[in-house]
Amino acid sequence: MDATPPLSPTERSTVRRGAKRARSDRRDLYAVLDAGLVGHLAVVLDGAPVVLPTGYGRHDDTLYLHGSTGAATLRAALAGAPVCFTVTHVDGVVYARSVFHHSMNYRCAVVHGLARPVTDPDEQLLGLRALTEQLAPGSWDTARLPDRKELAATAVLALDLAEASVKIRTGPPGDDERDLPAPGDPDPVWAGVLPITTVLGRPEPCPLLPAGTAVPARVSGRTPVPAG
Amino acid sequence: MDATPPLSPTERSTVRRGAKRARSDRRDLYAVLDAGLVGHLAVVLDGAPVVLPTGYGRHDDTLYLHGSTGAATLRAALAGAPVCFTVTHVDGVVYARSVFHHSMNYRCAVVHGLARPVTDPDEQLLGLRALTEQLAPGSWDTARLPDRKELAATAVLALDLAEASVKIRTGPPGDDERDLPAPGDPDPVWAGVLPITTVLGRPEPCPLLPAGTAVPARVSGRTPVPAG
Repeated sequence: MDATPPLSPTERSTVRRGAKRARSDRRDLYAVLDAGLVGHLAVVLDGAPVVLPTGYGRHDDTLYLHGSTGAATLRAALAGAPVCFTVTHVDGVVYARSVFHHSMNYRCAVVHGLARPVTDPDEQLLGLRALTEQLAPGSWDTARLPDRKELAATAVLALDLAEASVKIRTGPPGDDERDLPAPGDPDPVWAGVLPITTVLGRPEPCPLLPAGTAVPARVSGRTPVPAG
Repeated sequence: MDATPPLSPTERSTVRRGAKRARSDRRDLYAVLDAGLVGHLAVVLDGAPVVLPTGYGRHDDTLYLHGSTGAATLRAALAGAPVCFTVTHVDGVVYARSVFHHSMNYRCAVVHGLARPVTDPDEQLLGLRALTEQLAPGSWDTARLPDRKELAATAVLALDLAEASVKIRTGPPGDDERDLPAPGDPDPVWAGVLPITTVLGRPEPCPLLPAGTAVPARVSGRTPVPAG
């Protein structure tokens, strides 16, 4: 039995534009989500959409989000309003022979649903751990864990990965036949891909850290998850 | 007279959470937008939010978006529905002594408003030029420009930069006093920032390009806009 059932598209999670870029393998969804640090959470407030960047973490088929209990977007999601959460990686600029076919290489996951307020203390910790480890692997076991007051100030939301879509574009430009260079063209328009990668730099110690404190491997040895 | 009036917050563009990170200088808005390749556009469809990544371009105080005339999100925005458009740069992972104070360094611009369908042919070209140059500087003057059929298939939207907010976090963690290392602590928890940068790689020529075609400076010499 396959442990990762395919994504089953619903009406709104069906990719309509650029359908050939859609992926239906749930492992693609995991890969796109697991490679990110920030997603964009959209809610409806007073009839208008609001979209803000936010950290997240995944545990199996549940996505965890968190935020201050005072944040309006979080409060709307907590109240049972529908949400949409999107994680995007930009992998390259696609230069084509025509402006029309310029594009980007990217990986994008879109999750729709109703966020569930996490009230069980064990699940709250599980969610916060997933969030912390997504942002800073190893920190959950080394930093001070949240105390009662901090937990009370933190809303944790769970979003089932039930209704989701994944789109991935890779490869060279898809130019029209008419725009391709004629044989022997001495000055063809350059076309191709300019890759984009995310790079982690040299750790910058907190000024309040005693001089000479070693940078732990969980920080210095960290590498970004490679592009899918 | 100052050519760049400050951002005048409205009810929904007032930064409430982390207000000390809010910027009111319009030049910060320009800098965050101009440094990006992709933003996240949110609209409301059937009462639920949908947020998708999309390219954009800026001309003075107008943001241009585009997409296929067949895309549901674009159609909703074209029909006068409110939109929210957010551009986020993640600049670093902030490791704190407590899980609670873990954070990210980032620059984020959020624009609210009603998108205006661009119907004037001159403004449509102006918008598409801004979009193209944001993605691939120099391409507008070298690639084939859109023909009538391509223009008809492309919806261009204008969003005034009237209602917008900017949030920027920089610097080390903001730990509680109680979590700071005691003098002489032999094994303090590491805290600091792991910087994140976006890097452009080696251009990958289209396989259909004649061998030996030189990579133009507009591609090979391109550098990401440095962090604000």
